[in-house]
Amino acid sequence: MKIVIALGGNALGNSPKEQLELVKESARPIVDLIEEGHDVIIAHGNGPQVGMINLAFEESKSVNSKIPEVPFAECNAMSQGYIGYHLQNALREEMLTRGLEKSVATVVTQVIVDKNDQAFENPTKPIGSFYSLEEARAIEAAKGYRFVEDSGRGYRRVVASPKPIDIAEISILSSLMDSGHIVIAVGGGGIPVYRDGFRLIGLDAVIDKDFASSKLAEKLDADYLIILTAVERVAINFGQENEEWLSELDIATANKYIGEGHFAPGSMLPKIEAAKEFALSKKGRKALITSLSKASEGIRGETGTVIEDK
Amino acid sequence: MKIVIALGGNALGNSPKEQLELVKESARPIVDLIEEGHDVIIAHGNGPQVGMINLAFEESKSVNSKIPEVPFAECNAMSQGYIGYHLQNALREEMLTRGLEKSVATVVTQVIVDKNDQAFENPTKPIGSFYSLEEARAIEAAKGYRFVEDSGRGYRRVVASPKPIDIAEISILSSLMDSGHIVIAVGGGGIPVYRDGFRLIGLDAVIDKDFASSKLAEKLDADYLIILTAVERVAINFGQENEEWLSELDIATANKYIGEGHFAPGSMLPKIEAAKEFALSKKGRKALITSLSKASEGIRGETGTVIEDK
Repeated sequence: MKIVIALGGNALGNSPKEQLELVKESARPIVDLIEEGHDVIIAHGNGPQVGMINLAFEESKSVNSKIPEVPFAECNAMSQGYIGYHLQNALREEMLTRGLEKSVATVVTQVIVDKNDQAFENPTKPIGSFYSLEEARAIEAAKGYRFVEDSGRGYRRVVASPKPIDIAEISILSSLMDSGHIVIAVGGGGIPVYRDGFRLIGLDAVIDKDFASSKLAEKLDADYLIILTAVERVAINFGQENEEWLSELDIATANKYIGEGHFAPGSMLPKIEAAKEFALSKKGRKALITSLSKASEGIRGETGTVIEDK
Repeated sequence: MKIVIALGGNALGNSPKEQLELVKESARPIVDLIEEGHDVIIAHGNGPQVGMINLAFEESKSVNSKIPEVPFAECNAMSQGYIGYHLQNALREEMLTRGLEKSVATVVTQVIVDKNDQAFENPTKPIGSFYSLEEARAIEAAKGYRFVEDSGRGYRRVVASPKPIDIAEISILSSLMDSGHIVIAVGGGGIPVYRDGFRLIGLDAVIDKDFASSKLAEKLDADYLIILTAVERVAINFGQENEEWLSELDIATANKYIGEGHFAPGSMLPKIEAAKEFALSKKGRKALITSLSKASEGIRGETGTVIEDK
């Protein structure tokens, strides 16, 4: 089967040293799927990593005037190179260790959004450093950025999280998958760009990596979208006495549970929404939400929560 | 014909803003070759760009302890994402403007070197910030880095510039080229890695982008390697009264001129050496040294210096 796997950025750590170790943990269950004969393409988040890169440019500018302004889209592009480098090596090593002679590569991916997406009217995604109210107001006035107070820790810039509408490099990704290669793509949800005639223009925005993965799976005509998370299955009444773990979820039931507020915004809710979008994009397409270590079992129907349009 | 083009990092500017403009200049002559029906793969330098990234991490660490140590190989990976993002868009726009419906993508590329390469005994490539003698000695003692005095401006870290022996993602690049896609690869000479069993391990080193391009051209079985530089042709007695511009150069003559000291180390000499290596790798392979704007004319035999093993 053709499978898109969405890996969380938090699973990859906060520094090159941590990441080099953590990619090994991520590689094993992914290579299990490859070993079982599936065609796999890997998407991943980049929250901590793009945060580190963005912070380095912000902080270094204050001590060295030679450091230029580096927009957030460029920081995303850097994070794709940085994460891809470690992840492709971990996958390569795990495959070669098992005698699998497949090649793996990272493709720098741009994800196209609508620049009139209503998300731009109400940016919600915090990025970068914390500032005092005075500093935040000064930057707002100078650059037009928006800031919000974040959990009592200070003011932080917020950017929009628009919906992905297309993937600029889709035919490249498709060719590589058809040639039997393993590909890492849409890192950090992809570099957010909009179309202006023949030009693609970068945006200060963050595309949710689960929505980007869902769009990628749709455009690649994948059979399965696997969204990896911290739990083995989706639950309703999570953490309460009547907690119930779900093995499958049809669209109507998912909508009912969403309406009842079972899924936390910014956590399980976007995963359910992204899973629904993929399941609804074509009959027979399935989205699986499970933990990294359970991915193989999930694909065999032994665990995880399968979202499908029945 | 199958053509590898090696573009200089200096041609891409010192900031995202500069780079976004300069990639357009680079795109036009490259798309000329694509429009003429050639299969093109683009390699590029990253001196100013990886310098900017490395500097941001070095400087920001001094003001924010949350910024981790980021090795030079990881900075190279970031620079590939950053440069590739701008360059692929400029190529895409130029192609679409001319009605060429080809896809273009950047592949994060690792170039394999020998960890016993003698270059590691005598590192010569300066990277990163300038330090006082005292600071340099302290870092040498703490981290084992090597520093040298650089042009009276202070002490700078030097790393080795080992020779490329293989390209980890070659089958990916080959597949993409065979599928008719345009690919950007071995950015900044590639991420320098060595083999340790099935593992690839990053090195603090810089692979010369012309040697990496020559290796790429050889491994892809390319017909032509175009090394772009500031001048239209290679000269002997450069800048003197008896200056002579060369339209072709066989290996014996090239060696004679090298022996006579016609080509500046760190400038034209490595280009001639890289060109020679490609020309010598198989009968019929040609390397062309010319300026960006003359690439098409050069391929038609109208200008540039062709290095060939006759």
